[in-house]
Amino acid sequence: MKATVYHGPGDVRVEQVPDAALRDRTDALVRVTHACVCGSDLWPYRGQGAWKPGARTGHEFMGVVEDVGADVRTVRKGDRVIAPFVFSDGSCEFCGEGLQTSCVRGGFWGGTNDGGQGEAVRVPLADGTLVAVPRDVDLSDRQLAAALATLTDVMGTGHHAARLAGVRPGSTAVVVGDGAVGLCAVLAARRLGAERIIVLGHHEKRLEIARRFGATDVVTERGPAAVERVKALTGFGAASVLECVGTQQALDTAIGVARPGGSIGYVGAPHVERVDLGALFRRNVALRGGIAPVRAYLPELLKDVLAGRLDPSPVLDFDVPLDGVPEGYAAMDERRAIKTFVRVA
Amino acid sequence: MKATVYHGPGDVRVEQVPDAALRDRTDALVRVTHACVCGSDLWPYRGQGAWKPGARTGHEFMGVVEDVGADVRTVRKGDRVIAPFVFSDGSCEFCGEGLQTSCVRGGFWGGTNDGGQGEAVRVPLADGTLVAVPRDVDLSDRQLAAALATLTDVMGTGHHAARLAGVRPGSTAVVVGDGAVGLCAVLAARRLGAERIIVLGHHEKRLEIARRFGATDVVTERGPAAVERVKALTGFGAASVLECVGTQQALDTAIGVARPGGSIGYVGAPHVERVDLGALFRRNVALRGGIAPVRAYLPELLKDVLAGRLDPSPVLDFDVPLDGVPEGYAAMDERRAIKTFVRVA
Repeated sequence: MKATVYHGPGDVRVEQVPDAALRDRTDALVRVTHACVCGSDLWPYRGQGAWKPGARTGHEFMGVVEDVGADVRTVRKGDRVIAPFVFSDGSCEFCGEGLQTSCVRGGFWGGTNDGGQGEAVRVPLADGTLVAVPRDVDLSDRQLAAALATLTDVMGTGHHAARLAGVRPGSTAVVVGDGAVGLCAVLAARRLGAERIIVLGHHEKRLEIARRFGATDVVTERGPAAVERVKALTGFGAASVLECVGTQQALDTAIGVARPGGSIGYVGAPHVERVDLGALFRRNVALRGGIAPVRAYLPELLKDVLAGRLDPSPVLDFDVPLDGVPEGYAAMDERRAIKTFVRVA
Repeated sequence: MKATVYHGPGDVRVEQVPDAALRDRTDALVRVTHACVCGSDLWPYRGQGAWKPGARTGHEFMGVVEDVGADVRTVRKGDRVIAPFVFSDGSCEFCGEGLQTSCVRGGFWGGTNDGGQGEAVRVPLADGTLVAVPRDVDLSDRQLAAALATLTDVMGTGHHAARLAGVRPGSTAVVVGDGAVGLCAVLAARRLGAERIIVLGHHEKRLEIARRFGATDVVTERGPAAVERVKALTGFGAASVLECVGTQQALDTAIGVARPGGSIGYVGAPHVERVDLGALFRRNVALRGGIAPVRAYLPELLKDVLAGRLDPSPVLDFDVPLDGVPEGYAAMDERRAIKTFVRVA
C-alpha cells in the first residue's frame, strides 16, 4: 500500500510500504478515507522533533473498517469510523477517567506503527479507540467530512484547552494563536458559553475565520504589546486563557493576560525554555495543560457536528490527494495553508 | 514602641521605632499579643529575598484592638483579632471571589508598613482584614493561642495547597516538605478527607508530628529516589500533590510523583530555575499555586480550631518573647526549630 514516510527535515514522501494487516485479536483494519496534517507535524518537519528517518507519519484519520480481529465488539466491517490521535484500550483506570492519552496500553500512530497519512491503518485496541459514524451520514459531503476529520485531533484539542481554562457561560476567554487548534478553541469557548472571546493572531484570513467562529475581539499585537492590549480590553485580564501554540512567546503572553485566580489551558506541544512561575504564583493563575484526550470528547462533539451545531471544517483549507501529502506539509510550513485535508479515497 | 527591623542577611534586631497609630478612617490599631516567624522570612534572612535594610518584619500576628478609625464597623476596641498575612478591603472583585491576596487595595505587612513582629500594628482596611475571636476564648491557653496563630498563614497556606491539589474524600495525597506549611498541609489533607497521605521529609521530629497529624506513609529519600519510592507505594503516583517548599528539588519531586490527570498545589514561594512543562503536558498534570488567600479560609478554620477539631499548634515549637525574635530566626535557620512563636504580651 501507499503511505507517507519521514526522511528528514522538510522531506516526507509517499511510498510503497507493507500492507497494513490485522495482528492481534483486538485490532481493526481501517481503510483510510480522509486524513490531515497536524500543526504538531511541523515541529519534526522543521527539524525540531523526535521523528527518526523511516518513521510513518500522520495521526489524524478516519476511514472504513475493512476487517476486525476476533475480539472486536463495537465496530464491524463497513463501519465508517473516526480515530482519535492516540489509541487506547477503553478499560484501564485512566480511560475510565476520560484520560485516554494516559492509557496504560495505548500509543500513538506513526513511527513504527501505521500512520494516518496512508491508505490503511492497523488499529490496535479497536473497541477502545474507534468511534463509529452512523451509516446514514454522507461522507461524500466534503464539508461534513472535513468537520468530522477535525474530531480526530484539533477540535477535541481546542475543546480540551477550553475545559482546562475553565470556560463557562458568561466567561471572558483569550485564545492565544490563530492556527487550526486556536480557531477550534474559539469554537469550543463559544460552545461552552463564553460571552467574550479575544483571539490573538496575525493572519487576516485566519482571524476572519476566528470572527466567524465567535471571536468578539481580535488582537494582532505580539508579546508585551499584546498583553497591554488585552489588559486595555479586559481590565485585569481574562479568567480563561487558551494557549494553542506552544512557543515561548505564546506561553509568556498567556501568563501575561491571565486574570488573578484564572486558568491557562495550554494544548500546544510545549517548546519553551522557561515558565514564569513567580508571575503565576503571585496571581494564583493555574497552568493546566496536556495532550488532549480527544477520545473522551468525541461522542459529544460528533453529536454536535452531526446536528449541524458545530462546524470546524473551515480550518481545513487545503485539499490534497494522498500523493499530495508532501505539498500539504510544505503549504502549512510556508503558511499558505492553515491545515491540510488529505482526501485519500 | 519596639519592633523588629531587618538590617541585612542574618541580622534582624528588635529596636525602638515610631509608635503605630491610626492614619485612615478604615484603620485599626492592634496591640500584638502573638506573632510568628515564617519559613518565607528565612529567604531574605539568608540573603535570597527582596527585603531592604530598615524593613520592618513579620507578617503573622494576632492581638487586641486598641483603637479604630471612624469607618470601621466589624471590630471594636478590646476585640481579640487574627490578621491574615495580607490586608485587603473585602469589597473588590477579587475579595468577592475569595482571592484577597489579589485585592486591588491590599498589601503586605512589613517593609514600610508596620510588621507583625512588634508591639503594635496599624491595620489598614480593618473591616476587610481582621477576623475577631469570640470574647470568651481564653488566649492565655498557650496551645489554643498557638493554634490560632497558625491561621495567620501556615494553616491557611497548607489548606490552600490541599484545595489546589484537589484533595477530596478518599484521595491519595503526597505532601512534599515537612516544614510548618508541609505539616499543616498534612492536617489540611486529612481534614478534606484524604485516605492516604504520604509525606516527604528528612527530620525525624517533624515526621513524627506529620504522623500525628495524619500522614499514613513517610518517605525520607530525596530527588529521583523519593519519586521511585512514591511510585512503589502508589503505582502511578498521587492525584493530589501538595508542594510546600518552593525549591527546585521540591518542584521536580512534586512533578515526578503526580499521577496522570492529577494536580500539584504549590504554595512555597517559588525559587526555581526551570519547570518541566513537557512532563506536566504528557501526563495532563495541573500546576496550581499561589499566595494563599488565608483570609478566605479563616472563618472555617477558626471554627474548627475553636471546636477542638483542628490543632496545628505543634508546628510552633520554639517560644520567644519579642526581644527573642533574632534568636527565633536563628533557631529556624539552623533547623533547631520548626517555627518560632513570639509571645509579645
